[in-house]
Amino acid sequence: MPLAVGRENQAQKRVPNALEKLSSLVGEDLARVNAVIVERMQSDVALIPQLAGHIVAAGGKRLRPMLTLASARMFGYEGRRHLALAACVEFIHTATLLHDDVVDGSGLRRGLATANALWGNKSSVLVGDFLFSRAFQLMVADGSLGVLRILSDAAAEIAEGEVHQLMTANDTATTEAKYLEVIRAKTATLFGAACRIGAVVVDRPQAEELALAEFGLNLGIAYQLVDDVLDYAAKGTLGKSVGDDFREGKVTLPAILAFARGDEAERAFWQRTLEDVDQREGDLERAIALTARHGAVADTIERARMYGDKARAALAPFRDGTEKRILAEIVDFCAERVY
Amino acid sequence: MPLAVGRENQAQKRVPNALEKLSSLVGEDLARVNAVIVERMQSDVALIPQLAGHIVAAGGKRLRPMLTLASARMFGYEGRRHLALAACVEFIHTATLLHDDVVDGSGLRRGLATANALWGNKSSVLVGDFLFSRAFQLMVADGSLGVLRILSDAAAEIAEGEVHQLMTANDTATTEAKYLEVIRAKTATLFGAACRIGAVVVDRPQAEELALAEFGLNLGIAYQLVDDVLDYAAKGTLGKSVGDDFREGKVTLPAILAFARGDEAERAFWQRTLEDVDQREGDLERAIALTARHGAVADTIERARMYGDKARAALAPFRDGTEKRILAEIVDFCAERVY
Repeated sequence: MPLAVGRENQAQKRVPNALEKLSSLVGEDLARVNAVIVERMQSDVALIPQLAGHIVAAGGKRLRPMLTLASARMFGYEGRRHLALAACVEFIHTATLLHDDVVDGSGLRRGLATANALWGNKSSVLVGDFLFSRAFQLMVADGSLGVLRILSDAAAEIAEGEVHQLMTANDTATTEAKYLEVIRAKTATLFGAACRIGAVVVDRPQAEELALAEFGLNLGIAYQLVDDVLDYAAKGTLGKSVGDDFREGKVTLPAILAFARGDEAERAFWQRTLEDVDQREGDLERAIALTARHGAVADTIERARMYGDKARAALAPFRDGTEKRILAEIVDFCAERVY
Repeated sequence: MPLAVGRENQAQKRVPNALEKLSSLVGEDLARVNAVIVERMQSDVALIPQLAGHIVAAGGKRLRPMLTLASARMFGYEGRRHLALAACVEFIHTATLLHDDVVDGSGLRRGLATANALWGNKSSVLVGDFLFSRAFQLMVADGSLGVLRILSDAAAEIAEGEVHQLMTANDTATTEAKYLEVIRAKTATLFGAACRIGAVVVDRPQAEELALAEFGLNLGIAYQLVDDVLDYAAKGTLGKSVGDDFREGKVTLPAILAFARGDEAERAFWQRTLEDVDQREGDLERAIALTARHGAVADTIERARMYGDKARAALAPFRDGTEKRILAEIVDFCAERVY
C-alpha cells in the first residue's frame, strides 16, 4: 500500500498539530470539564471512583468533549453550560467503553489493563451503569430537554449499534453496508451528538444544529474507519496495537473488502480466522498482507477521506474563524491519524 | 419458626387478593402500558425485541408500573402521561434485571432460563443498555424535567447500590446497617420513584410527592426483606425457589442475624459456605435450620412488617378511597407475600 503509507507519513507530521491546536483552543474549558468529571464520578461506594478514575484517566484524548467545547466556541458562546454537557458526553463514552471491554473480553486498552481485567466484569458492568446515570443527572441539572433528547437518542442508537455488531460478529458475509450501519450507530452518533450540543447551548437555528450533527457524524465514521484500518497496519509503523480486532474475529471493512476480493483459499483463511476464530502463528501477518495486496486498506482509507470531505463540507454554513479552521483540521486528524 | 409460618399461612389466603385487586384497579391502564412496552422495545436489530420480549414476559407481576398507575389514580388523574412513565419504570427495572443476572451469573429467573443463559452475557449487557436508553427517550417525550430528575437520580442510586452489594458480597462481616443501605438503594429507590411519579403527573404539592416516595421506599425495603427471607424458607412450603442467594454466597439479613447469634462452629459454617462459597450436600438444609433456630427468619419478617407499617403510615395525608386502600393492602402483599 505505497500510496497509503506515503500519505500517512505526511499525516504523521501534520496531524498531531491539529489535535494540539484543538487542545490549546479549548484547554481552559477542558480543565474545567475534567474537574466536573472527577467531581461527578465520586460516590461513597469506594469502588466507583477507583474504577471510574482508571477508565477516565485511560480514556484517552477527550476528543468528544473537545468537540462540544469547540462547537460552542465557534458560535462565540461565553456561558458555562457546555462544560457539564461535555462531561456528559465523556461519561456516556466511558460507560460505553466499560461495557465494550466486557463484551469484547478485552484485557488491554491503550496499553493499560482494562477495568474489567483489574476489577472484574461485574464491576465494569455496574460502574458503567452508574456513569451512564450520572450523565443523565448532569443533563437534568442543565435543564435542556433538547440536549436530553439528543443524548438519549444517541445512547439508544449506540446500544442498538453494539447489539447489531454482536450479531454480525464473526460473520464474513457481513456486507459493507451493514458494517457502515454499525459504525455509524456505535461510534459516529456520539460524535454527531457531541458537536450538535455546541449549537444547542447557544440556541442556534435547527439547520445549524443539524449541520454540526452532520459534521460530527461524518467525522465519526471517518474516525472509526481509520481505527479499523490501524488494526491491519504493518507492525511497528503505527502507534496503535495491531491485530486486536483480528484476534477477536471482528469483521471490519479491511477484512470485508479483502474477503470479497480474495480467491477460494483466501476466503477459507478468513472464515477459519474470523468465523471459527481458529488462529495460528503467522495468521495476523497473512491477514495484513492480504488486506494490503487487495487494496483493502487503501480503499478503507479512501472511504475515510470521503467521509472526512463530507464532514468538512458540513461546516460550510458557519463563519470562518479559528474554531472552524481547527474543526476542519481535526478531520485530517481523525481521517488520517496515526495514533 | 412457628409464628412466622402461621402468619404466612394466613397471608396465603389474603395476599393474592391484594395483588388481584391492584391488577383489576389498574387493569385497563396496565394493558396500555404493556402495549407501550412492546412498541418501544422494537428495533431493526432483531435480537433486541427477542431478548427484551423474553425478559419483559418473564419479568413478573409488573408491580412497579402498577404502583405508578395506582398512585396517579389515587389523585383522580385522567390523562395518559402515567402510561409511558409506568413503561419507563418497567424498562429501568428490566434493564437492571438483565445486568443483575449477568453479574450474579444466574441461569434461572422465576423458573425460566435467564436471557444471559439463552443469548449470552454480552447480549444481556447491551440490550440492558438499550432498554435503559429507551426509558430516557420515553421520559424526554413526556417532557417533565421533574420526572427525569427522579428517575435519573434513582438509576444512579440503583447502580451505586449494586456496586455496594458487589463489594459486600461474600463478606459475613456485613452489618445489618450496610445491608439495609444496599437494599434501600438497589430495590427500594425504584419503588419510591415509581410511586412519586404518580404525584408528579398531577402536579401535587411537593410534600405529597415526598409522602408517596416515602410510601414506596418503605414498601420496597419490606419487599426485599421478604425476598431475602424466602431464600431460607423451608423447601416446598413457598413458591419462590429456595437457596439461590445462599448458593451464590449472598450475605442477606437472615444470614447476618444467624451469623451474629451463632457459636464458633456456626460462624465457621457461614464463612465456609458464604465467603469461600465452598458448599456441600446438606449445607442449605443446615443454613435453613440455623436461620430458623436463631429467630433470624422471624426477625427479618418482623423488620419487613415494621417497614410495611411505615409505608402505610406514609399514606395518611391522602384522601381515603379505593386506591389508597388497595395501596395499603399491597403492603401486606409485599411484606408477607408467599410468591
